[in-house]
Amino acid sequence: MIMKEPLTKLKWSKYLFIAVAGFLIPLIVVSTSSANQSPGNISKSPEDLINNLWVLIAGILVFAMQLGFAMLEAGFSPAKNTVNVLFKNVADVCLGIVVFFLFGYALMYHPATSTDSNVIVIPGVLEVSSSYVALNHLLPRAGAEHLSVYIDFFFQAAFAATSATICSGAVAGRIKPLAYLLLTVIITGFVYPISGSWVWGGGWLDKFGFHDFAGSLVVHSVGGAAALACVIILGPRKGRFDDQGQLSPREQSELKPHSLPLAAMGTFILWLGWYGFNAGSILVFSANSVGKIVLNTTLAGCASAWAVIVWRWRNNAGRVDLSTILNGILGGLVGITASSDVVEPFQSLFIGIVSGVIVILGVDLLSNIKIDDAVGAIPVHCFCGIWGGLATGVFAQGIDSIRFVTQLLGSFLIPLWSFGVVIVVLTILNKIFKIRVSPEKENYGLDWQEHGEIAYLSLEKNE
Amino acid sequence: MIMKEPLTKLKWSKYLFIAVAGFLIPLIVVSTSSANQSPGNISKSPEDLINNLWVLIAGILVFAMQLGFAMLEAGFSPAKNTVNVLFKNVADVCLGIVVFFLFGYALMYHPATSTDSNVIVIPGVLEVSSSYVALNHLLPRAGAEHLSVYIDFFFQAAFAATSATICSGAVAGRIKPLAYLLLTVIITGFVYPISGSWVWGGGWLDKFGFHDFAGSLVVHSVGGAAALACVIILGPRKGRFDDQGQLSPREQSELKPHSLPLAAMGTFILWLGWYGFNAGSILVFSANSVGKIVLNTTLAGCASAWAVIVWRWRNNAGRVDLSTILNGILGGLVGITASSDVVEPFQSLFIGIVSGVIVILGVDLLSNIKIDDAVGAIPVHCFCGIWGGLATGVFAQGIDSIRFVTQLLGSFLIPLWSFGVVIVVLTILNKIFKIRVSPEKENYGLDWQEHGEIAYLSLEKNE
Amino acid sequence: MIMKEPLTKLKWSKYLFIAVAGFLIPLIVVSTSSANQSPGNISKSPEDLINNLWVLIAGILVFAMQLGFAMLEAGFSPAKNTVNVLFKNVADVCLGIVVFFLFGYALMYHPATSTDSNVIVIPGVLEVSSSYVALNHLLPRAGAEHLSVYIDFFFQAAFAATSATICSGAVAGRIKPLAYLLLTVIITGFVYPISGSWVWGGGWLDKFGFHDFAGSLVVHSVGGAAALACVIILGPRKGRFDDQGQLSPREQSELKPHSLPLAAMGTFILWLGWYGFNAGSILVFSANSVGKIVLNTTLAGCASAWAVIVWRWRNNAGRVDLSTILNGILGGLVGITASSDVVEPFQSLFIGIVSGVIVILGVDLLSNIKIDDAVGAIPVHCFCGIWGGLATGVFAQGIDSIRFVTQLLGSFLIPLWSFGVVIVVLTILNKIFKIRVSPEKENYGLDWQEHGEIAYLSLEKNE
Repeated sequence: MIMKEPLTKLKWSKYLFIAVAGFLIPLIVVSTSSANQSPGNISKSPEDLINNLWVLIAGILVFAMQLGFAMLEAGFSPAKNTVNVLFKNVADVCLGIVVFFLFGYALMYHPATSTDSNVIVIPGVLEVSSSYVALNHLLPRAGAEHLSVYIDFFFQAAFAATSATICSGAVAGRIKPLAYLLLTVIITGFVYPISGSWVWGGGWLDKFGFHDFAGSLVVHSVGGAAALACVIILGPRKGRFDDQGQLSPREQSELKPHSLPLAAMGTFILWLGWYGFNAGSILVFSANSVGKIVLNTTLAGCASAWAVIVWRWRNNAGRVDLSTILNGILGGLVGITASSDVVEPFQSLFIGIVSGVIVILGVDLLSNIKIDDAVGAIPVHCFCGIWGGLATGVFAQGIDSIRFVTQLLGSFLIPLWSFGVVIVVLTILNKIFKIRVSPEKENYGLDWQEHGEIAYLSLEKNE
Repeated sequence: MIMKEPLTKLKWSKYLFIAVAGFLIPLIVVSTSSANQSPGNISKSPEDLINNLWVLIAGILVFAMQLGFAMLEAGFSPAKNTVNVLFKNVADVCLGIVVFFLFGYALMYHPATSTDSNVIVIPGVLEVSSSYVALNHLLPRAGAEHLSVYIDFFFQAAFAATSATICSGAVAGRIKPLAYLLLTVIITGFVYPISGSWVWGGGWLDKFGFHDFAGSLVVHSVGGAAALACVIILGPRKGRFDDQGQLSPREQSELKPHSLPLAAMGTFILWLGWYGFNAGSILVFSANSVGKIVLNTTLAGCASAWAVIVWRWRNNAGRVDLSTILNGILGGLVGITASSDVVEPFQSLFIGIVSGVIVILGVDLLSNIKIDDAVGAIPVHCFCGIWGGLATGVFAQGIDSIRFVTQLLGSFLIPLWSFGVVIVVLTILNKIFKIRVSPEKENYGLDWQEHGEIAYLSLEKNE
Repeated sequence: MIMKEPLTKLKWSKYLFIAVAGFLIPLIVVSTSSANQSPGNISKSPEDLINNLWVLIAGILVFAMQLGFAMLEAGFSPAKNTVNVLFKNVADVCLGIVVFFLFGYALMYHPATSTDSNVIVIPGVLEVSSSYVALNHLLPRAGAEHLSVYIDFFFQAAFAATSATICSGAVAGRIKPLAYLLLTVIITGFVYPISGSWVWGGGWLDKFGFHDFAGSLVVHSVGGAAALACVIILGPRKGRFDDQGQLSPREQSELKPHSLPLAAMGTFILWLGWYGFNAGSILVFSANSVGKIVLNTTLAGCASAWAVIVWRWRNNAGRVDLSTILNGILGGLVGITASSDVVEPFQSLFIGIVSGVIVILGVDLLSNIKIDDAVGAIPVHCFCGIWGGLATGVFAQGIDSIRFVTQLLGSFLIPLWSFGVVIVVLTILNKIFKIRVSPEKENYGLDWQEHGEIAYLSLEKNE
């Protein structure tokens, strides 16, 4: 294994250094002043202790989804890009949480009040008090006064990091690391918190009665639509839609998953994390409500897997590929996310079955229109996310004043918002510096070219 | 890597399609009627909230055992069957939970009452009200009135899925996927719930005072005895007991574990899941009781590992293989499962040590009588499960009116029940369609033949 | 793949057999007497149930760190030593917990009281009632009366096992398994409990006001300093500091990580476990305190990763290697461990950034002075552990009467104690039997030589 490409000085390091150094200075400046923050006086009743404990545990489960995404996307990537995929997953969570800490949380959960003097308003998009978008913002928010602000922030930050990570897999193998990290800042710091504030921060969609319980739209469709924008701007990987006959067997294999055990592991971990994601979103521990959410989540994942299995058996000569089942499970979990608190178990089974079909048809659709989503993130998170919002309108009409027309509106506007912003941002970035790696790097693999490492070394030793 | 075998239309896809479509229609039919279900009015005292929270967390830990089994069994399989092993583990949990939801839970936990009009009775085996074995059955059960029925179901369904998964590893490399999935339905829907009702559903073994706290017998010996029945009907893999000199080195290696890191990961995850499995089975959070169960579980696992290590050092010229240690740990955990609530820590160490020895001797025994258990599931789950039931009779006599003779009775009848039913079912299935794959498929590996995928692609790229 | 080395009778098996058999007999003897132990009457108030539940969950998370260490160290090792690494990680936790159960816990948490008649005193080092260092010692301890002694023990035992495991990675590839296991007994049974008693068992450092909240020093620097002692006595692996030109490409690759996905997985699992490690150490569930610890832990890990990323980009021509980022995250988590309860979020970011820089400089330093730490355990756990103790003195002065000078004292004495004891013990062991494997075994890899297994078999089958 000889690496021929010489190490070259990449220009983008300096952009990054300046950006990060720009964080450092304010941090040190405020390190004393921030000591004045008060996390509020939360109730110490046993009920509220239990609520806090549950949300903390749910937050840890949601945080574990980062491990799930890393393993899923690494397993679904070719071996030559595995380090790059892992790098993106590690770096985006570390960056996303800091960004959400510095201003994302304030944007999302601290709408301007009538007494604020400094209000930033973009009608229909943003209405926020500038006094929070400073560094002194970790204050209790409406609707979560019973939670420690630290625990609430941790739970919400893990959500925000999820939203960005969804893109990572779709764009595997061709985006420059710097471009990806800037995108993470945009998504975690602006796109997700702003549309999130419409629904969960007391914004206009919330006032219309739009119901997205744990984020089929707010989290998954935002991530999935951003992924769609990315892969449109980036274009497909070399060989993905060319005549496969022109490719050597090695080149063909480089477009396929390199490790299905990693992908299966990632899926199971995501499933486990989803119990925190959905059942923690209620923010209190009410046994029947939490239990019903857990049951609905489980049944939708199971049913979606079975929809995929049966469909594939019918249409693929009895051969059922594991990869699509794994995406089917994730699609079912995304589909039930919006309505897991308001539907009945049998409805969850139905929502899951439809999700499985959507994943299969969505993958085919993208392939037909030559959009290259390396891991199936767009069908799973964007298409099933939209289905989740609509299914809420179908099955939960009348409960909590949910109306189908409002669900329809929100289910298209939220992904559209994410898609639109990301298209614009990436187009601009692409003017400043090309966001796609060079064809040589793509061919060699990003691991060695961008990170100076390869994922696996010499597995067979004693020959 | 060229796959020569052409894709062929497999007949069994149609069986499966009909079976699953048969589920779909009733689901949609009842989707409104089920909305009338009431989860009951559970107490909202802080104590009961804590109990529910603990059982939910335990359920999530038990669910994580599915990931553990998948990784353990994949790691212990040859690479050519890895996708198939993962498929079975994913599909059986998705199928098992739905089956347990549709009727397993009702069979196990809703014995007929004197006021029922429609009672199905098979004396000594089954006594159930048919009104529950419909789809309107998710109702609170005796002994768990303090739990949300959703949380109780989730916890119990994760147990049921475990019971089926135990078979998966033993039969690796030669069972047809359809046969395996039908077996999952039999085990999760009938075998496990019926013998489970004897002990945990207020049935006759419970009335005799039989004590199997968390399922050494009810879960593990049922799964392990089913595995034994399977491998007897299936016969050994090609080359397993033939003169090894006749096999090429490649053929020999295909009978050995392909990835010990995966196997070690699976074992650790199972160990963690066991804390939920054992300490959640008490269904309340009583600090000293839960803590003692956790401690006993831990010590038995540790002691069993050490029994294996010392034994191997003495008898294998100082070379201690990791595979047997991993199975030793699992054996120790199975062994303590029945009695972890009633024994003292030092007794747990002893139970663990004996379990380790049973694993080693059990593997040798099966090998001597030419029974091919691909991953050691039978010694771990069946033999150590029986030991767990007997050890309860030895060490906990007199506590909770536990008697050795009752333990002896239950510890043989429960695995016998599972073994008997599975032998009969598989013999019948084998008449209808051969349940073993063709020798060509076995030789090629099930991954490509049954799933059209291989587990690993091109790990070394930049040559 | 043909294994030529014949199986040889290793002498050390007999040492081990005697040692373990020596455990067995007292176990059986006391199996009845131990039944008299009382776990104490803990309060059953909802608040105390919640405290117990939280510490139990935290203990399970800390136990999961064993999985994290196993995957991290296996991934960072060459493939030829992977089984050996996994063996050490499995065996040390199983041994460490039993040792800590038999006497470590008593040494650490049961200081002699004035009414004790049989007191063992080594001034400044050890002061313990011999009546506890028997087998009847699992009794409630000062400061944790509100916890079930079983839950408290479980949590503390998981900590003790962590301390030993830290060594495992540094010494990979050259230590004899027996020597490593004896070292585990020394660390878990004596080194860790004794210095732990100084800080957490009411000992002299505690009386001086030394603050090490969750063990930057007590756990991590003890493990890291022991690792430093080990690698000094063992010497570097063959080829590590020789002219690399003399090595074949295969030999060079055998000094590098063989699987970065495993290493990334291990890091994420350790991160998750750290939430239990840090936030569980408060031993009660106080929502704001626990939440703040979780937030500080998260931010320090994120900031440390970013310090590494930026530094590498500046100094490695834009190529950022994943391995160093992973160690950076762990360094940040170690750095915040001592002070996560007393610093503010912005201070955590700063502590994390410095930790990242320490990891990079520490790796370079060890490399320059030709100390071969195979996985970077010494910079991560020892150097960042010391920084954690000092940072507490810098940022938390005056809080809880923390003084910089006391922090300085403790932050050097604790690792020095561990380093000193381990140097002496290993020097003695090295006289009795050579603790380093033979050059032939090192070259072949320990997996086949010591365990008769290899980690991976035949990944590509259908060629």
